[in-house]
Amino acid sequence: MAIFVQKFGGTSVGDPERIARCALRIKERRDEGHQVVVVVSAMGHTTDELIRLAGRVSKSPSRRELDMLMATGEQVSVALVAMALEQIGVPATSLTGAQAGITTDGVHGNSRVTAVARARLEEELGLGRVPVVCGFQGASGSGEITTLGRGGSDTTAVALASALKVAETGGVCEIFTDVDGVYTADPRLVANASKLARISYEEMLELALLGAQVMHPRAVLFGERYGVPIHVRHSQRPDEGTLICRESPEMEEVMVVGAALKPDLGRVSLRRIPNNPGVQGMLFEAVAKAGILVDDIVQTEFGEIASISFTVDHSDLSDVKIAASQVLDRVGTGELAIEIGLAKVSVVGTGMKSHVGVASKMFTALGAAGIAIHNITTSEIKISCIVSKPDAQRALGIVHEAFGLESLGKLQAASTAG
Amino acid sequence: MAIFVQKFGGTSVGDPERIARCALRIKERRDEGHQVVVVVSAMGHTTDELIRLAGRVSKSPSRRELDMLMATGEQVSVALVAMALEQIGVPATSLTGAQAGITTDGVHGNSRVTAVARARLEEELGLGRVPVVCGFQGASGSGEITTLGRGGSDTTAVALASALKVAETGGVCEIFTDVDGVYTADPRLVANASKLARISYEEMLELALLGAQVMHPRAVLFGERYGVPIHVRHSQRPDEGTLICRESPEMEEVMVVGAALKPDLGRVSLRRIPNNPGVQGMLFEAVAKAGILVDDIVQTEFGEIASISFTVDHSDLSDVKIAASQVLDRVGTGELAIEIGLAKVSVVGTGMKSHVGVASKMFTALGAAGIAIHNITTSEIKISCIVSKPDAQRALGIVHEAFGLESLGKLQAASTAG
Repeated sequence: MAIFVQKFGGTSVGDPERIARCALRIKERRDEGHQVVVVVSAMGHTTDELIRLAGRVSKSPSRRELDMLMATGEQVSVALVAMALEQIGVPATSLTGAQAGITTDGVHGNSRVTAVARARLEEELGLGRVPVVCGFQGASGSGEITTLGRGGSDTTAVALASALKVAETGGVCEIFTDVDGVYTADPRLVANASKLARISYEEMLELALLGAQVMHPRAVLFGERYGVPIHVRHSQRPDEGTLICRESPEMEEVMVVGAALKPDLGRVSLRRIPNNPGVQGMLFEAVAKAGILVDDIVQTEFGEIASISFTVDHSDLSDVKIAASQVLDRVGTGELAIEIGLAKVSVVGTGMKSHVGVASKMFTALGAAGIAIHNITTSEIKISCIVSKPDAQRALGIVHEAFGLESLGKLQAASTAG
Repeated sequence: MAIFVQKFGGTSVGDPERIARCALRIKERRDEGHQVVVVVSAMGHTTDELIRLAGRVSKSPSRRELDMLMATGEQVSVALVAMALEQIGVPATSLTGAQAGITTDGVHGNSRVTAVARARLEEELGLGRVPVVCGFQGASGSGEITTLGRGGSDTTAVALASALKVAETGGVCEIFTDVDGVYTADPRLVANASKLARISYEEMLELALLGAQVMHPRAVLFGERYGVPIHVRHSQRPDEGTLICRESPEMEEVMVVGAALKPDLGRVSLRRIPNNPGVQGMLFEAVAKAGILVDDIVQTEFGEIASISFTVDHSDLSDVKIAASQVLDRVGTGELAIEIGLAKVSVVGTGMKSHVGVASKMFTALGAAGIAIHNITTSEIKISCIVSKPDAQRALGIVHEAFGLESLGKLQAASTAG
């Protein structure tokens, strides 16, 4: 008997009819003889409505009170899902994050799970019941309700799956969502993108950081740290989705599993500045203080003179310009250049660690198509090229084709079957 | 420095504008130098909407899951009220029933408060903050969320006031509602009904049981048991309301403080039945099993033969007829009579204990007006007469006038001022 954690997002529990379908999904797993723990998000737009209500009462509501308010959204969902389960003969018990034993660090609005007490979950499972747990929330050591921030319900599911050691029982953490898995590229941008049968935590993390919205990076990291197999599936369709798991030798055979696009970037360059110790720290501290997330950084130096370039979201450019100008004033020499209309195309794959030629294959394909590369950054399992925005979507398709990603999904599925 | 508990009902916190007015009301008390603990109900029709939602998911949702669902209503309110307070510079902390230390007997849907742990409330007060507590809910010893049933938020307020010993500090429990106090009769039925400055717990309890909807009997009982002074006030008007308190010698001077009407009753009579031990038990057990609340019971006996009459709500008559017929079949002899179109007029006053002539004054007044009395029942502080429904409202007015109730409110207010 395996233990499965099944997580349903806000769209999946958006109305009573969808809730009934989720209940059937849960019943199916139980009817196979498994134990199931369910995690649910707030229904549809509940969270947005609660935030709007708060805005009508206070201009700057405290994070503690927002948490108190937001936490009701998931509590409504768990009660309704438990009712729907009992309606079809599945004994169920809804639990708040606190009741389910989820302890957080107590940071309101963006807390981290620090511990999961399994006792209550195991008690309910032992009684043959399905615990239905509020996602996105927990309680601090002193009993304060805190929310986990973006991607919180995924994190709850992975944390419970880890605490219950689902992998050891043969179960997985199933994330039911409104897409049917992880694709080799965004199917809205690349028509022949293929659905991956599996992907490693590392790869998923890179893709998530590059903008794939299937799963939040924090939940993927949690899964990686505790070795929780995560199966991303469509909530309304029975198809197999994508399994996020530890890297296996056969996975390293594949050089690249996915291509991603960040479509709207600008580049900020400080040229001919003195290459003094501390100048980089000064610059990026100023940028961080302005609340700006920096994408990739490139530095080149010529003796005592250096140039630093970095990319940021287009929308952050005006703020970053002010911060960078002030830094330039302080160092006393150099010039500031801002370029707009850029985009970033990346390929991701753990196979890069052991295969040579991935970078050259990417550059050659882009070059053959006449696409200029303005900048290159790499990590152990990722290569990114900055290109002009008008070239961006074409560049994504070219790279996708160069690595044969359109047939990767089928290849993986065949090797799993075999 | 006194401690005040202020309770705001669902209408009072029905929208952001009303919530802002409640916040001002709370701030006023604090600005007088007092400590304030706030109790709030769910906003407006939230509870009804949640019940409707549950009905779309399940035909017979369990009480536990309904409690889980319902409890979110008050949690939304407390967060919003706390935000509204902070918006006007009053430090506030919202608390669920469980966080506020309210322990219940764990009966879902209709639990009783068994203990209130003051620690958290005192901690918040000590920090100069206003605790804003969810009414209507608590947690069982094992951490299950339970609701208190009808009148639950009033009970929460009185329970907190009792735990905090507000009376000893010179404070009271203020119940803000959509009426401005307790009247000598329902002002919709008796135009010159006057607002009472004060009323004893016992009297309020009788009036509540007779249909006065100002406060739930359970909250009044709780107040009586622990000697919590309760001030019923209008939430949007500054006027003094009615103080519900222990009987004082001067209150006994007044024979009657209120008159009440139950407008739609039927009478069931079992006549000429054997006066065996146990026949009453058999009858009322059958009626109770049918879920029917019995109003007043009158028994007369002639040796071995007895007649039992009792009144019930008109809407329960058909059910009670079936139950009573079955009992008659079992006792083997006697006859069943059903009368409809009755009503009950009552007067209530602790002064009856020490004054003679209250009953005769009531009967004489009704007789002089040509109103026939079909039945009389009395308790220590109440006299009820069953009259025909077409006479009922006139009878209420006559009794109200006979005891001079139209000027009682003014008399009380004058004696308080003096």
